[in-house]
Amino acid sequence: MSEFMSTQIQLVSRPTGWPTHENFRTVAVAHDALRPGQVRVRNEFVSVDPYMRGRMNDVRSYVAPFALGETIPGGAIGRVVESAAEGVPVGAVVLHQHGWSDTVQDDASTFRVVPDVPGVPLSLRLHVLGMTGLTAYVGLTAIAGMREGDTVFVSGAAGAVGTAAGQIAKLLGAKRVIGSAGSPEKVALLTEKYGYDAAFNYKDGDVRAQLAEAAPDGIDVYFDNVGGDHLEAALDAFNDGGRAALCGAIAVYNTTGKTPGPDNMANIITRGLTLQGFTLGAYLHLAPEFQERMTAWFAAGEISYDETIADGIENTVDAFLDMMRGANTGKMLVRV
Amino acid sequence: MSEFMSTQIQLVSRPTGWPTHENFRTVAVAHDALRPGQVRVRNEFVSVDPYMRGRMNDVRSYVAPFALGETIPGGAIGRVVESAAEGVPVGAVVLHQHGWSDTVQDDASTFRVVPDVPGVPLSLRLHVLGMTGLTAYVGLTAIAGMREGDTVFVSGAAGAVGTAAGQIAKLLGAKRVIGSAGSPEKVALLTEKYGYDAAFNYKDGDVRAQLAEAAPDGIDVYFDNVGGDHLEAALDAFNDGGRAALCGAIAVYNTTGKTPGPDNMANIITRGLTLQGFTLGAYLHLAPEFQERMTAWFAAGEISYDETIADGIENTVDAFLDMMRGANTGKMLVRV
Repeated sequence: MSEFMSTQIQLVSRPTGWPTHENFRTVAVAHDALRPGQVRVRNEFVSVDPYMRGRMNDVRSYVAPFALGETIPGGAIGRVVESAAEGVPVGAVVLHQHGWSDTVQDDASTFRVVPDVPGVPLSLRLHVLGMTGLTAYVGLTAIAGMREGDTVFVSGAAGAVGTAAGQIAKLLGAKRVIGSAGSPEKVALLTEKYGYDAAFNYKDGDVRAQLAEAAPDGIDVYFDNVGGDHLEAALDAFNDGGRAALCGAIAVYNTTGKTPGPDNMANIITRGLTLQGFTLGAYLHLAPEFQERMTAWFAAGEISYDETIADGIENTVDAFLDMMRGANTGKMLVRV
Repeated sequence: MSEFMSTQIQLVSRPTGWPTHENFRTVAVAHDALRPGQVRVRNEFVSVDPYMRGRMNDVRSYVAPFALGETIPGGAIGRVVESAAEGVPVGAVVLHQHGWSDTVQDDASTFRVVPDVPGVPLSLRLHVLGMTGLTAYVGLTAIAGMREGDTVFVSGAAGAVGTAAGQIAKLLGAKRVIGSAGSPEKVALLTEKYGYDAAFNYKDGDVRAQLAEAAPDGIDVYFDNVGGDHLEAALDAFNDGGRAALCGAIAVYNTTGKTPGPDNMANIITRGLTLQGFTLGAYLHLAPEFQERMTAWFAAGEISYDETIADGIENTVDAFLDMMRGANTGKMLVRV
């Protein structure tokens, strides 16, 4: 059996503030001979996601922090190139969480075979048809309890979760969907491609004022990918009984020290608001329901998406940093 | 029919920061002759409550602000002294929302007759057996979804709602109940009289550190009467899936300008927390359920209470200010 080399990105130190290349190293690993029950997979796409920044810290969280000196785990999709496992043949498309690596070898049970459907690019399994879409769906339904006729505000709306959330909200019957993004091009995309009824560039001025203008009748649901001034603006814009799904806080992921929270927390009481944070792990039971609905929407041509793709596993750290800075539109991916 | 005089407290200007006597005036009003369907009531107790501070501001809220130049409405209990209404005889005990006044005259429909049970002081209908107890019950059950075995933290625990909340939490099966209060005497009461398992004086030092020490295994439910540093401490102490019922924010009611929120909002996401604000208006349908359970607990001798009583309607403003400063233990009332 010939040697099977793998290029992998590992975390070697914990970032303070913005991560730098010094926090990572690229290593070449020679895999052992394939053992019974194992498969070898050549990745086609590797995912970089905002939540990964949190796992680079050594703090108590819903999942353990990334281990130092080990390959960064995360979503990826590839094809089986060699198999010693029944039911997972060479050529099969597999999703997995082995992360930032061009190739991977492990027990077949750590991979999930997904159908290779003509007209459905593999990369979509890492976003609109995968965890990203599920995140948007869970946030709107199980967390924020979105109802037909609601006005919905999505921050970070041009990102992977945000583009999915806006479309799902409209498909679920939202009366009005408002999005924020960080460039005029993204803002234009939101209304022209993603069905947002209104959008604004948060860099153009006060988020509170811009949201108030975009939502003259207030908002009922807020899908938060950003935190900070966006959450504060939402707390001001909420109608009575408003509900926020707190999914991400990219505004503060790379800050050091303490970040003051919203200055209008009292609105939570006086307007009877609910703020609920979530991470996907506790809601995976909703995946079948999501897959059924999303597959139908996608087949009906109701789902648009964008991908921002970096080429080469060696560019994964840059892709991650670009994504944290908002350089992506839609899903940020690394093509291996 | 002789003239029926009433001494009433009215709001004449909106306070900025702490209210002062200049924001109020005391007026003597002569009632008209009793009309058919009306009753005249001599109040025995008038309630002063933290939520009233919010209604003194002219801001959008779940209820309209108090009108300037009108008598401040609020909970009170008294006896009918003259009646032109069927079914509401002289001597009947009535609860009502006519507020800060020694006597009141209005349609019988604006009063609710309550039983005058031997051994049940009338004042209790304004707290443990009334809105205050219901607030504690609703916050723990409908809002925070308290479950048997939960560890519960109550801030402002020696106040009217707090003393009720601690006892109800234990009766509902809390494993451990922790309270904060503002004096050594109150802290002692919490553990000696109200069944709290641990208590601390928030003036003794950092709330975060004191709560962490009192709750070595974290907290599952937080009943917030205080806001500010207490909410921040709770966000640090929460176990995954923790739930906060935000009932009051006495720490910030009298601040002017903006008050920064908790510096650890990201915990809401990473620990999957839920913060839900509430005011009682939307939960009055739970009153019968509460009355049934609370009456049984009370009859079984399971419910302790304290009252801090000011004498004379002319002292209502001082009673209100004392309550805002935390001078009360248990329910603050004015005896007319």
